[in-house]
Amino acid sequence: MSDEIEPLGGETVFEGKTLSVRVERFRHASPAGAGEVVEREIVRRQDAAAVVAYDGEHVWLVRQPREAIGGFTLELPAGKLDVEGESPLQTAQRELAEEIGRAADEWHEVVAYHPSSGYSDERVHIFAATGLREIDTRPDPGERIEIVRWPLRDLERAIGECRDAKTIIGLQWLASTRRPS
Amino acid sequence: MSDEIEPLGGETVFEGKTLSVRVERFRHASPAGAGEVVEREIVRRQDAAAVVAYDGEHVWLVRQPREAIGGFTLELPAGKLDVEGESPLQTAQRELAEEIGRAADEWHEVVAYHPSSGYSDERVHIFAATGLREIDTRPDPGERIEIVRWPLRDLERAIGECRDAKTIIGLQWLASTRRPS
Repeated sequence: MSDEIEPLGGETVFEGKTLSVRVERFRHASPAGAGEVVEREIVRRQDAAAVVAYDGEHVWLVRQPREAIGGFTLELPAGKLDVEGESPLQTAQRELAEEIGRAADEWHEVVAYHPSSGYSDERVHIFAATGLREIDTRPDPGERIEIVRWPLRDLERAIGECRDAKTIIGLQWLASTRRPS
Repeated sequence: MSDEIEPLGGETVFEGKTLSVRVERFRHASPAGAGEVVEREIVRRQDAAAVVAYDGEHVWLVRQPREAIGGFTLELPAGKLDVEGESPLQTAQRELAEEIGRAADEWHEVVAYHPSSGYSDERVHIFAATGLREIDTRPDPGERIEIVRWPLRDLERAIGECRDAKTIIGLQWLASTRRPS
């Protein structure tokens, strides 16, 4: 927390299974803020991890139903940090195994970002995974996920097609590593 | 709405000033879903528009307090579609004037994306604006926004520093237009 934004406390106004909402108050100490108190409605939710898993020819995506937006989306494999004690990297490794049926030899974090910094504290960690190998996993039958092996030569088309923040960020990063700088 | 995701209705469980939460139910018609009914907690919030405003030397960013994440962030100028009847482009034009004090001659939409398609229907429209000129605006004294004129030669450093989804997406796009393809 920055010294210039003093948290004054608040209340939980909704407590759900996957997210909660708090109304919180803050004092702005900066000269411009001049001690003004502001109130914010803030969504609290578990952080998430996503994976840009690729080899020399393909990047591994999933197509899945997203009820909130009323359709199917093309996305990086990803999931919430909902296993006690699991690090973002471990979540990314678990999701790659569960959704794509693969493990990877090399991992590094590309970025950790806030999808909606105006009203949520959620962070999404994006990892790059290479040195992929098939592993024996039994996909969760409730997952409703289609694996999409997308050709890297068509990467720009995937960036143009997808409408999901983490996927755009991850694929733009992948495209940038493949262009002459 | 996709034919494969049938909305069954739901309830508003929180109604705030800036967002609401609904619990909604859906039936999956696909063979894989086999008629299963799922329940989702969905945050409803106004869509937003953001601007990548640049000339030959700089891109115009803002640094502002984000109480939800407890600090200041480097961001594209942006705002909610909270004026009745305003299009995403008009919101982007208004925000560029209010936050940066500039108008632009050329506009085009770079992308419209979902920041959190797992639990929110929010869409963010990112526009590119060029042909910038200074206009006479009186910044809102409550805005607490610092204008940051960021040199394009240091664009990669801005992408590395910022942690805000719309800004990463907009600046990655800008970087991609400046690299030899």
